Amino acid sequence: MPASHRSLAIDVGGTAVKLAVVWDDGRVEATTEIPTHADAGPEAGAARILDAGRDLMEAVELAPAEMHALGIASAGIVDRDRNLVLDAPNLRRWENYPLAANLGTAFGVPAFLENDASAMTYGEWRCGAGRDRRHLLCLTLGTGVGGGLIIDGQPYRGARGAGGEIGHITLDRNGPACPCGSSGCLERYVGAPAIAVRAAELLGRDSRPSALRSRAERELTPRVIREAATAGDTLAIEVLAATGAWLGVGLASLANVLDMERIVVGGGVAKAGDLILEPARRVLRERAMSVPGARVEIVAAALGNQAAVVGVALLALERVQGS
Amino acid sequence: MPASHRSLAIDVGGTAVKLAVVWDDGRVEATTEIPTHADAGPEAGAARILDAGRDLMEAVELAPAEMHALGIASAGIVDRDRNLVLDAPNLRRWENYPLAANLGTAFGVPAFLENDASAMTYGEWRCGAGRDRRHLLCLTLGTGVGGGLIIDGQPYRGARGAGGEIGHITLDRNGPACPCGSSGCLERYVGAPAIAVRAAELLGRDSRPSALRSRAERELTPRVIREAATAGDTLAIEVLAATGAWLGVGLASLANVLDMERIVVGGGVAKAGDLILEPARRVLRERAMSVPGARVEIVAAALGNQAAVVGVALLALERVQGS
Repeated sequence: MPASHRSLAIDVGGTAVKLAVVWDDGRVEATTEIPTHADAGPEAGAARILDAGRDLMEAVELAPAEMHALGIASAGIVDRDRNLVLDAPNLRRWENYPLAANLGTAFGVPAFLENDASAMTYGEWRCGAGRDRRHLLCLTLGTGVGGGLIIDGQPYRGARGAGGEIGHITLDRNGPACPCGSSGCLERYVGAPAIAVRAAELLGRDSRPSALRSRAERELTPRVIREAATAGDTLAIEVLAATGAWLGVGLASLANVLDMERIVVGGGVAKAGDLILEPARRVLRERAMSVPGARVEIVAAALGNQAAVVGVALLALERVQGS
Repeated sequence: MPASHRSLAIDVGGTAVKLAVVWDDGRVEATTEIPTHADAGPEAGAARILDAGRDLMEAVELAPAEMHALGIASAGIVDRDRNLVLDAPNLRRWENYPLAANLGTAFGVPAFLENDASAMTYGEWRCGAGRDRRHLLCLTLGTGVGGGLIIDGQPYRGARGAGGEIGHITLDRNGPACPCGSSGCLERYVGAPAIAVRAAELLGRDSRPSALRSRAERELTPRVIREAATAGDTLAIEVLAATGAWLGVGLASLANVLDMERIVVGGGVAKAGDLILEPARRVLRERAMSVPGARVEIVAAALGNQAAVVGVALLALERVQGS
């Protein structure tokens, strides 16, 4: 049975906004990406998202009247009932802005907002690396670190829809301050800015040759470091290994509390694959208790950076059908 | 309708073993307590538990044939299907010992094993401070720190029954080594031994007068410190406040991940009440994200140190009735 409807999905992150046209079975027909320019505020952002969405729809000949649903995934804690972003450390000016309502009106279709990591989790659970698991943790490593949970075969959101903020568990009470108001959060050790700082520090105190030395700190992106590591650059490999080890510290804590079957890791930083995941697995086994630690699998996301748009498209579709 | 049956419940901790005769509605008829002497091994322990249980049953005129069920709560990760303790940092020699099978045979009644913190959680959820909550975290502060979860109105155990090990989330990757194999675990900051070390350190570097100065470090038990604090001893109050602050660091991480409605704190250390809980509440509000942090309540357990025996009696009863 062929999928017969298409939805528009939008994934708003601290750095980039992804847009995708997604079929009802989760297949992605087309995608595009624009920079977020978060500091320019949500009105300007919404206007640029609208333009990019219209261009994408035109490119795949999707008329507004044919669009099935509009799903919007956003960083931060989301109020699903009111379609608002409540608390987003990497999108502070976008809090409480009616992005979904405004884009829904502009596109002429019901729009639903979801936390980006919950959307990614749903996508990986329905169509990706978490398929058929009853106890699943997904996390997305990018500018920020988000997470989502499937518990006993159901998406878990917590008492007020704010669960799953994996990036803000404390790994060192006296560690670096976090925009969330706490300190030493997982995100401060494995998010993209933390990786750049780690690379710059290592380059400063270690005299071995490295392709990274030609770069300013702001150029030490996860992509640049990953490419150097893949080419065999020892310092770049060590930066990713140290990042993976911190990830393992956090995942060990979560395994002890939640006893998951599988942990799916996605997001831009996770493109480094086993350069990050293998050190994370090693540290998880060292630090987690024997039973939850011995069998939990850490795997790369299967849908790449499309997990959130796939998930939010399927979630929006369910909400349109359920309403 | 009067409760018509009684069960025997046994709560095996690193320091003490509690025994109780419990009615089917959760009322406790009688209790007794013996030291664990964990290092003497489980055979000697089982023999002493058997003696204490028989004495207790005789005292309340409960004949073995009238006993409805035998529930055993134990520290550590428990395999409920095989009735074995798999991993117990504070009861290492008791791992894989068939305590439930042997006591069940000796008492002539089906015996069921449960993790002590899961039992405490079940007791507080059914009959105590967590009644009618759908998203609940219970923790028990003693020699070790255990925890249990009620998620979406159901006891949560994880993929392999090992979830809820709240005491072993990392608060400082480079913190003190933990018997679990990790380092900087919550238990290393709020368990009874950590409190004694904190008190001794504060006494060493602070010259203010304190009733605690007359004590050797091994005498700095939570009870001694609590009694001094209640009498107004400033250093004792500060030791408990610092302990509560560390508890708040851990609970903030858990609130960000799980977004609970309520956190119930029990165990011997928690008898200090608001001397520990108020600093924990303050730090939780400072460190947790706005939505999960603003409304989660931290309350004292209502069943005191009887929560685990009440919970394990009710759980054993359900399993007898279900089998």
